Amino acid sequence: MAATLARRIVRPGVLPLCSRPPAWGRAAPRSPGLLLAQRRAFSNNKILVELDEGSGVATMKFKSPPVNSISLDFLTEFCISLEKLENNRGCRGVIFTSAIPTVFSSGLDITEMCGKSTERYAEFWRAVQESWLKLYGSNMVTVAAVNGSSPAGGCLLALSCDYRIMAENPKFSIGLNEAQLGIVAPFWFKDTFVNVVGHRVAERSLQLGSLHSAPEAHRIGLVDELVPEEKLQDKAAAVMAQWLALPDHARQLTKSMMRKSVLDRLVAHREEDIQNFVSFITKESIQKSLRMYMEMLKKKKS
Amino acid sequence: MAATLARRIVRPGVLPLCSRPPAWGRAAPRSPGLLLAQRRAFSNNKILVELDEGSGVATMKFKSPPVNSISLDFLTEFCISLEKLENNRGCRGVIFTSAIPTVFSSGLDITEMCGKSTERYAEFWRAVQESWLKLYGSNMVTVAAVNGSSPAGGCLLALSCDYRIMAENPKFSIGLNEAQLGIVAPFWFKDTFVNVVGHRVAERSLQLGSLHSAPEAHRIGLVDELVPEEKLQDKAAAVMAQWLALPDHARQLTKSMMRKSVLDRLVAHREEDIQNFVSFITKESIQKSLRMYMEMLKKKKS
Amino acid sequence: MAATLARRIVRPGVLPLCSRPPAWGRAAPRSPGLLLAQRRAFSNNKILVELDEGSGVATMKFKSPPVNSISLDFLTEFCISLEKLENNRGCRGVIFTSAIPTVFSSGLDITEMCGKSTERYAEFWRAVQESWLKLYGSNMVTVAAVNGSSPAGGCLLALSCDYRIMAENPKFSIGLNEAQLGIVAPFWFKDTFVNVVGHRVAERSLQLGSLHSAPEAHRIGLVDELVPEEKLQDKAAAVMAQWLALPDHARQLTKSMMRKSVLDRLVAHREEDIQNFVSFITKESIQKSLRMYMEMLKKKKS
Repeated sequence: MAATLARRIVRPGVLPLCSRPPAWGRAAPRSPGLLLAQRRAFSNNKILVELDEGSGVATMKFKSPPVNSISLDFLTEFCISLEKLENNRGCRGVIFTSAIPTVFSSGLDITEMCGKSTERYAEFWRAVQESWLKLYGSNMVTVAAVNGSSPAGGCLLALSCDYRIMAENPKFSIGLNEAQLGIVAPFWFKDTFVNVVGHRVAERSLQLGSLHSAPEAHRIGLVDELVPEEKLQDKAAAVMAQWLALPDHARQLTKSMMRKSVLDRLVAHREEDIQNFVSFITKESIQKSLRMYMEMLKKKKS
Repeated sequence: MAATLARRIVRPGVLPLCSRPPAWGRAAPRSPGLLLAQRRAFSNNKILVELDEGSGVATMKFKSPPVNSISLDFLTEFCISLEKLENNRGCRGVIFTSAIPTVFSSGLDITEMCGKSTERYAEFWRAVQESWLKLYGSNMVTVAAVNGSSPAGGCLLALSCDYRIMAENPKFSIGLNEAQLGIVAPFWFKDTFVNVVGHRVAERSLQLGSLHSAPEAHRIGLVDELVPEEKLQDKAAAVMAQWLALPDHARQLTKSMMRKSVLDRLVAHREEDIQNFVSFITKESIQKSLRMYMEMLKKKKS
Repeated sequence: MAATLARRIVRPGVLPLCSRPPAWGRAAPRSPGLLLAQRRAFSNNKILVELDEGSGVATMKFKSPPVNSISLDFLTEFCISLEKLENNRGCRGVIFTSAIPTVFSSGLDITEMCGKSTERYAEFWRAVQESWLKLYGSNMVTVAAVNGSSPAGGCLLALSCDYRIMAENPKFSIGLNEAQLGIVAPFWFKDTFVNVVGHRVAERSLQLGSLHSAPEAHRIGLVDELVPEEKLQDKAAAVMAQWLALPDHARQLTKSMMRKSVLDRLVAHREEDIQNFVSFITKESIQKSLRMYMEMLKKKKS
C-alpha cells in the first residue's frame, strides 16, 4: 500500500488519484473528447456514466444490484469515473443517482468489513477516504438526485455533494445510522454531516443512528428539496443549470474556502484514520456483531 | 487545592473524580450492586438518587429548597452521585429532574460568590468545572426533565445532557442570563450553548442575558421537546428507552467524538479559568452588583 | 504602507485606528462632549452622524449618491466616525441606515478595483479590513436598519452588527453575491456570514452569489426581523433600548467572547489577505470581467 502511495503523483491543488489502477487502462488524458462523444456513455460494471457535452453535465448512475452497496470495486470505479470527469474540461457538473428502484445506495459493503485480511481492510478504507476526498473537494458542481433509501455511506455520498434533492416518498430514508450497527461514523463523516445540519442535529442523529424519512430529512436540512419521484431528474437538471450559471472560477474558490478545513483534517490524519478503522473492525466483538447483522439481512431477504 | 488535585487518580479516558472527598465515605467501588438493590435509593441532603436496576435508569432529583441553587455542597453531592452511577455497570442512563415545584434549578448559588475568601471561590469554581466535565462527558445517556424554571447554571445543567424535555408551561423560563446580573458566562458555558443552538442564537441570547419561555426555548432549539407537566416523567422514560436501544459502546464513542474538543478546551485552560473567575468575582464593582441583586431577591420574597 | 502601519499606535484591547488620517483633522479626543452637543450632528461628505446624548444612541446615515457605494473616501469617513463614537463615553450604541431611497449600500465601489495602482488597491483593502475590524469588534451596540437593497460589502456591513432589521419590501434584496461578479468573498466575509446563518446556508448562498429578497433573508436568518418601512427607525430605536438595558461591561465581554476568534483570524493574516486581494484583482481576467460588469451597470442606467 505504501509503495502504491509513493508512486502516486499528486498535483498541487488537485486531490490525489485513486490508489488502485483502473482495470480498463490508465486515467483519462487531458483531451477526453477523444474518449467521449456527444452523449456518449462509458460504463463499467457498477456505475454508468453519461456526459451531455452540450450542457457539460454528466450523470453517474449507480447500477450495482441488489442495493448499490459500496464495495472496493464500486469505489475504484467511482474514483476513476470522477477523476475522468474532473479532468475533462467539457464537464462542469455531475448528477449522482441510482439505476436501482427504491435504493440510492445502501452504504459501505459489509462483506468488505468481515473476514478479510488487515491489508485488505486498509486498502478498502483508503479507497473510501479517496472517494470522499475527490467528491467533497470536486471542482465540479455535484448534485445528488436521491431516488431511494440511502443509509450510512450512501448518506455520506449525498452529504458530500453541493445540493441534495430527494424523492418525496416517505418510505425512503436517509441517515448516518452506523451506531445502530454497533460501529462509529469516522470523524470526517461527522464533520461533513455537521457542515450540513449543524452540531446539535448531528449529535442527536449520530448517537441514535437515525434513519430519517424523506420529509424529516428535509425538515432537518439533510436534504435541500423534496420532489415527486417522476420529477426528480428534471429537477436535478434545473438545479444544475442554476449552479452552472455562475462563473466556474469564483464558484470553485468559494467552495474550496468552505470545505478546505474539513478536507485538510482527513489529509492530515489519513494513515491514523486507516489504522483506527483496521484495529476497530478486526475486534472480535465488532466482527461478531457485523456477522449477526449480515445473518439478519439474509433472513429478511428469504 | 493543588495538593488535592495532585492526589487524584485520573484514569485515562475517564473524567477525573470530584475534588472534594465525599462526606459519607469513598466513591462506590466497581461492584455497586452491593450498595444498591432494585429501586434502592440513596440520598444525601440535596439530591435524591433512585436507580431502577431493571431498566438501568437512574433518576437524580434535586431537592434543595427553596430553589435548588447550586452551592458547593450541592456540587459535591452531584459529582459523587454521578461518579457512583458512572462506575455502576448496572446504570446506563440518568434522568435529571427537580423535586421542587416550578423550579428545576435556579443556577449557581450567589451566596457562594459573595464575601468569601479567594480560596473558597477557587474551590467553588473548580467544583462547577468538575460537575460540567463529568456531566457533559458522561458515558451514560443523560436526559433533562425540566419541570420548572432554569436560569444560568440550571440552564447549563440541562444543556449538558443528551436530550432536554421541558414542561410546556409558558411561565417556566430557561436561559444563560448571566449578562443580566452584570456577569459573563465563561467560555465553556458558551461552547456548550453554541453546540446546542448555534452561533447566532447564542450570540444574541448571551448578550441580552435572555430567559426564554418554554415555547420560545423549544422554537430556538434550546430544548428538544415540550410536554404537559404531568406527562414529563413518562416522556423522559420513553426517550431514555429509545436512546438505550442503541449499543452502548458505539453511542459512547459517537458522543465523545461530538463533545471532545469542547471538553478538552476546558481541561487545557482549567487553572486559567479558575483564576479568571476569582479575579472577576473579587472585583468590588462585581461584589457590589451581586449584593444588590441579592437584596432585590430578598425584597421579592418578603 | 508598512510605514503607515508602523506609525500607528495600537492600544491593547482596542482595535487599531484607521490607517488614513482624517481629511478634517485628528480623531476626536476623549472628551467628545466638547465637540458634540445634545443632538448635534457632524457630517462629512458621505456619512451623516447624529448623536442623541439623552439616550446615548448615535445614528450613522449613509448619504453617498447614487447608491452608497463603499469607496476609500467612504471607508475613511466610516472609520473616523466610528472611532469618534467609540471614544465618546456618552455614546453606547449606533444605528446604521441609509439616507438614500431603496438602497442601504451597494457594497464596495467597483471603480476602486479597476485600473488603479497596486498601492492604491492595497490601501483600499486595508481600509475595508479596518472598517470591518472596528465594526465587528465594536464595544457599542450596533443595529442595522436596512432600508433598501444591500449586496456584497453592504451586506457585510449589516452582518457585522449585533442586530439586523430590514424593511419588509420584497423588492429589497441582500446577500454576499460576489460570485456573480466572478470574484470571491474573502475568508472573513465568509466567517462573519457563517456566524450568522450557519455553515450550510452560507456555503450554498456564497457559491450561488445569492441575493435574497427581504422575506427570504428573514427566513434564513440573515436578518433578524422585518418591519414595514415606515416603522423601521422606530423599531431600530426600540431594539437598541432593549440591548442598552443590559450592563455595558458584561455585554461587551460576552460580545468579545463570541467574536474574538474570527477577528483574531483576520488580524493574524492581514497582510497576506491584502496581498491576496491585490494579486487577485490585478489579474487581467478579473479586470476584464469587472469592466464588463461596469459597462452593464452603465447601460442599465441609461
